[in-house]
Order: sequence, then C-alpha cells, then structure tokens
Amino acid sequence: MNDGSFVLPKVRLEALVDGVFAIAMTILVLEVRVPDLQDPRSAAELATALRHAWPTLMAYLFSFLMLGLFWAWHHRLAAKLRQLDGVLIAVSLLFLAEVSFFPFAAALLGRYPLNAASLMVYLPTVAMILNLQAAFYGLARRRGLLHEDLDAEQALAPHRRNLKGCFFFYLFNLPSCLRFGWAAVLVCALATAFFGFLLFKARPSRGTA
Amino acid sequence: MNDGSFVLPKVRLEALVDGVFAIAMTILVLEVRVPDLQDPRSAAELATALRHAWPTLMAYLFSFLMLGLFWAWHHRLAAKLRQLDGVLIAVSLLFLAEVSFFPFAAALLGRYPLNAASLMVYLPTVAMILNLQAAFYGLARRRGLLHEDLDAEQALAPHRRNLKGCFFFYLFNLPSCLRFGWAAVLVCALATAFFGFLLFKARPSRGTA
Amino acid sequence: MNDGSFVLPKVRLEALVDGVFAIAMTILVLEVRVPDLQDPRSAAELATALRHAWPTLMAYLFSFLMLGLFWAWHHRLAAKLRQLDGVLIAVSLLFLAEVSFFPFAAALLGRYPLNAASLMVYLPTVAMILNLQAAFYGLARRRGLLHEDLDAEQALAPHRRNLKGCFFFYLFNLPSCLRFGWAAVLVCALATAFFGFLLFKARPSRGTA
Amino acid sequence: MNDGSFVLPKVRLEALVDGVFAIAMTILVLEVRVPDLQDPRSAAELATALRHAWPTLMAYLFSFLMLGLFWAWHHRLAAKLRQLDGVLIAVSLLFLAEVSFFPFAAALLGRYPLNAASLMVYLPTVAMILNLQAAFYGLARRRGLLHEDLDAEQALAPHRRNLKGCFFFYLFNLPSCLRFGWAAVLVCALATAFFGFLLFKARPSRGTA
Repeated sequence: MNDGSFVLPKVRLEALVDGVFAIAMTILVLEVRVPDLQDPRSAAELATALRHAWPTLMAYLFSFLMLGLFWAWHHRLAAKLRQLDGVLIAVSLLFLAEVSFFPFAAALLGRYPLNAASLMVYLPTVAMILNLQAAFYGLARRRGLLHEDLDAEQALAPHRRNLKGCFFFYLFNLPSCLRFGWAAVLVCALATAFFGFLLFKARPSRGTA
Repeated sequence: MNDGSFVLPKVRLEALVDGVFAIAMTILVLEVRVPDLQDPRSAAELATALRHAWPTLMAYLFSFLMLGLFWAWHHRLAAKLRQLDGVLIAVSLLFLAEVSFFPFAAALLGRYPLNAASLMVYLPTVAMILNLQAAFYGLARRRGLLHEDLDAEQALAPHRRNLKGCFFFYLFNLPSCLRFGWAAVLVCALATAFFGFLLFKARPSRGTA
Repeated sequence: MNDGSFVLPKVRLEALVDGVFAIAMTILVLEVRVPDLQDPRSAAELATALRHAWPTLMAYLFSFLMLGLFWAWHHRLAAKLRQLDGVLIAVSLLFLAEVSFFPFAAALLGRYPLNAASLMVYLPTVAMILNLQAAFYGLARRRGLLHEDLDAEQALAPHRRNLKGCFFFYLFNLPSCLRFGWAAVLVCALATAFFGFLLFKARPSRGTA
Repeated sequence: MNDGSFVLPKVRLEALVDGVFAIAMTILVLEVRVPDLQDPRSAAELATALRHAWPTLMAYLFSFLMLGLFWAWHHRLAAKLRQLDGVLIAVSLLFLAEVSFFPFAAALLGRYPLNAASLMVYLPTVAMILNLQAAFYGLARRRGLLHEDLDAEQALAPHRRNLKGCFFFYLFNLPSCLRFGWAAVLVCALATAFFGFLLFKARPSRGTA
C-alpha cells in the first residue's frame, strides 16, 4: 500500500459516499419504533405513544437534514478534485466512519435529550465530521490533486469556507463545554484558536480581493 | 451555503435517491418477523403464525409498490431538469426524509390496520411525499432549471400531473378525515382547495390545447 | 401515468436493482445473531453456540449465492434491452419486491429447516422470482424494447433459457409438493405444463438450428 | 449458465461491490447499542454505560477501516480488468458473501474480545477475504481478462502484492493458531507454505527487475 502510485478513480469514492450516506440517513428512522399497544384498536393509546416519540421524530428530521448538508458539502468539495491518492482515501474512510457513527450519536441524543453525556458523544461526532471534511479538501489542495483549471483564489475559497465552519462550530459550542468540565473547555478553546489561526493564514490576498 | 453558486451535478442526487429508495424498500420487509415456535417442526403452528402475518405481508407489498411508484415518478420529473441549485437540494432532502420515514408509517399501519391513529401517520406521510414531489418540479420550473429544449407546454404537463395527483389525493381522503376530527377535515379541505386553485392556474392555454 | 410515453433510462433501474440486491444480500447475515454467553470468556460455550448456528450459516451462504445468481441473470437479460416502458417497470418492481422478501424466506428456512411450512414460503418466493424474470424478458421482447442489432434467434435464446429454468424448477419441485397437499401438486403440475408449452412454442426454428 | 459467453460489464459488479461494502460498513455500527438507563437524566450513568461500550467502539472503527482497505484494494485490482466472465463473477460473489459476513465476525470479536472462539471466526473470515481477493486477480490474469495495455511485469505486480498479503497474514497468525489446537496450526502452516510457494513462482524475472 505504501508505493506512491495508489490512485482510485473519483467515481468509486463518490459511489461509496452516496451509499454510506443513503444508509446512514435511512438507518436513523430505525430508532423510531412501532409502539406495543395493550389495545391494538385504541387510537387514543397509539396517539399517546406516538406523542412520546416526538423528540425522537424531531431528532430524526434534524439529523437527516444535517447528514444531507454534509453529503451536499462533501460532493461540492469532491467536485473540485481531479484524483484521489492513498492519503485522501484514508481521510475519506475516516470521514465515512464518522458518518456511519452519526446515527448512533443521533439515537442517543433523541433518547436522552436532556443528558449531558449524550451531547458529549454528539458534538464530538459532528466536530470530527467537520474537521475531516476540512482536512479532506486542505490535503487535496496541498497535494496538488485539485482540477488544474482552478486559480489560486478559486481553490482557496472552499478551504476558507470549511475553516470558517469549524471555527464557528467550536466557538458556538464553547459555552456548552462548561457543562462537561474544564478539560472539554480547554480542548474546545484550543480548537477554536487553531482554526482561527488557519483561517487567518488562509485569508484572501489584498490584490485579488 | 448562501452564495448563489451552490450547484450539484444531477447524477449525485439521483444516486442518493436510488440508494435511499432501495434501502427504504428493503427495510419494509424487516417488519415481517420470523415467528417463535414452541415446536420448531410443527408445520401447522408455523402456518398459523404466518397466517397472522398476512396483513403485514399485504402492507409490505402495497408499500413496496407505492415506493416504487414514487421512485419512478421522481426520476421521470428529474429527467426534465438540467441542474440542481441549493433550494432544490433542500427540497429533495426533505423529500428523501419523508421517503425514509415511510417504512415506519407502513409498519405502523401493517401492525395496527384498524387503528385510526395509524392512518393519522400514514396519510400525512404520503401527502408530504406528493407535495414535496410537486414542489420539487414546480420550483425547478420557476427557477429556470429545466432542460432548454422543453417548450412551455411540455414543461407544464408534468407539473399539472403532479398537481392533479395532490388534488385527488386530498379529495379522496376528505371522508377519512372525518374520523380524525374537524381540524383534520379543515386542513384537508384547504389543501384540496389550494391544489384545485393551482391546477386551475396551470391549465393548458387554449392556443396549444 | 397512463399516457404511452412513460419511459425511464435503463441506468436508473439498474442502479435500483444493484441497491436492492446489495441490501438484500447484506441483510441475510443479520439473521446470524451474536449469541448471549453466561461466561463471556468461555471459548467452549461460544464454540457450542456457534455450532448450533451452523444451519443458519449454510442457509446464509446458499441464499447469498442464489441472490447473486439472480442478480447476474437479471443484468444479463437487462443488457439486451434498449429501453423500459411502464409495464416493464411494474414487472421490475414486483421482481424487486420478491427479491427484498427473499431474506425473510431464507431466515425462515434457516431457522426451521425441517418444517414443511418454511418450504411453503421459500419455494414460491423462488418460483415468483424466476417467473417475473422470465416475464420481464418475454414482455420486453414482445413489446419491441430489445436492442435492434439482435436477430430473432439471438433474442429468443435468453427467453428459452428463462423458460427452461422455470420448467425444470417446477418439475424438480413436484415431489416436494406432495408434502404440501394435492392443491400444491396441482398448481405445480399446471405451472410445469404451462412452461413446457411455452418452451415448445419458443423452440428454435429448423432453418437456424 | 454453462455456455462460454457469460460476460457482465465491469460497472455492474463495481456498483454491487460499492453497495455491499457501504452496507457492511454501516451495519457495523448497529452493534453499538443505545444503553438503557434507570435515570434518563443521569450523565454519570450514561457515561459509565458508554465507557463499557469502549471495546465495541474500537472494534467498530478498526473493522470499518479494514473494510475500507479491502474496498480500496478490490477496486485497485478491478481497475486492471477488461471484463468479467462467469468464473470471476462466482469468485466475486463468494468474496462479497465474506464481506457481508464480516460485520457478524466483527460484532462477535467486539462483544467477546478475550474469547478464543471469537478469533476462530474472525481470522478465517479475514483469511477468506484475502484469499478470494488473490484468487479474483490471479484467475483474471490466467483467463486473459486483464487490460491489453498492461505488460507482463505490470500484470504480475498486483498479483505478487496479493500473495504477499496472504503469506504474511498466515505467517503472523501462526502463533495465535496455537491457542486453537494443532489442527489449526497445521492448516495455517500449510497455507503459509502454499502462498510462499506461489510467491516464489511469481517472483519477477531477472531481466525486468
């Protein structure tokens, strides 16, 4: 695996990505269970049971749309790539591992919405997806795998958008980290600073802006 | 997300749509469970258990074919599109969220076929799928994303077919809404009137008909 | 839906077919459950539990390969088609409904291999898949949807192969039908005769053989 | 099925492979269950429950990346093929059957990591995947199904890489086989010798090295 020539046509990764996202999205709804009724014909009993499934249903719709956003975002980035090498495939597989894990995190949050430990699983999962997304494109840019007809500014814009996404995600979640203890606050603050620094470094040059 | 240039090649959405439909269709059958027998060799006991699974089996086949109809319908509409923008992707994701939710609604109806609350979940799910389908094409038409070689009349025909589908769906289900109370009847009557109005507005012009 | 122009590009159906088969094949293994052990470290206890899963495992492998055979067969037939119309899409959806149902039939047979009622579900499912496969190609041929560069004999050969498959399937299963009562024998004998008749009608003409 | 002309376009197998891998990868996470809590709001209780899920989580990530490696490896081999015949389709289906079985083996190992019988299922599954991968490419080479523009040395290199993978896998697992009894050691030693022999036979010729 460690010779330099490990390349894969982009279409194969895109097919795997579509498959994993389609399944992750559809698996979300498996968490919404058909309730067991004592009287199968009682509409009142079923309605009550379904009303209790409300947080699960909202978590389902919200998570579905978030996965949809990640999916559209990924393809928007991948569209700018010319080819994949071994490193990008590895990053993509880690990205997909997080995406597949997302339904579990969403199920946890849907079942225990008021439990801090649910957020302790959900937020890092989303953070990892955003980070790996940013790493995917950042590495492609640095390794010269983008389409040749993109000029420097066009190649930089999606990178900046990714970094902004990560920066604001960590920034907005700093307050929630207070609930998880000082270690979590520290990690989150460092990540905010890190992406702030990257964002500063990737600012558009005066001449082109 | 808020710059105007968010476009995605159609082939990516079609792949996601095929994936989500394939999984939703296959997940339907997971509701049909292998029964637990007291005497594993008793054909009579197994036959009895399977006979009780009959409504579930019929619901399975019916729901599979309905999903198949939605799938073919969607692709028939998507074939007329040139490109997707952010709004259409958002509508498509909502559409897929309803499609993924459909197996749950079908499982509920298969398990409690005589319970009014099952229909209260099933019918709105179907209604939302039909509405989002109509919105998908209607918005594509208004936003100039259809193939350029379609003339006005060719572009209008599928739209009219969608509106007709929604109109008759609400009209036929008005009587069932009586079981759910006056609020449901009111919503259904308003939706019927709304699609009737759209259908009237989208009628073919005299010159071309 | 009832205007004559309902056509769908073949590639869409093929994508759905691949998706449904991939999921049906992978769902088969969900029936093989991780056993619950009293002593999690006891290799002997786990080995014993797994040994009892043996019929399930064999049913899994057998069913996987059968689905694989149906999959390859379907694509071999579909490769000869030029286009799909509404009738063929309907037949394909019924075919896929049977394919999705197959994991349930296989799970039933794997769990109750000695129970006649399991075969009463499994054999008709296989029969329906074979019949719908034959109907799919037969209808495509009659409705003029095959590639134009196939001559009559080339178009007939796959049809004959399908009919032979159905004929021998019913013929070989006639004895098993004795276990299910005379009604089953009668249905099976009629089906054998029917496909024998079709096979006779589709025999190669003297001139070309 | 037994006429020589059974060929299938490569793109169909690749689509099935992508689908099966996407599902197998996503099914892995189904083994990570949302725990049942006595006090739904107790973060401490949930955190404890999740800490016990640690081995399952690590097994999930590890297995996901292994499947990802097999996936990339398969496509790298398949990219060198021109066409598939019946034999290669059969080998591919056996390969996919093992891939689909992998989530079960991984779930077993994640639940009983210290149980020798878990490894007795996991290691042969991985071995079979590696063997079938090697057989897939080796048979394609022997049956003349590789792209014509590959010279002998280019065609041989992936074959050698496959054989090396199998050889070292068996070699490294020889010690673990001691835990499973002498029969396992014997099988493993024979397999090591067999792949060592194939590797020796497939060594690069002096002239080209």
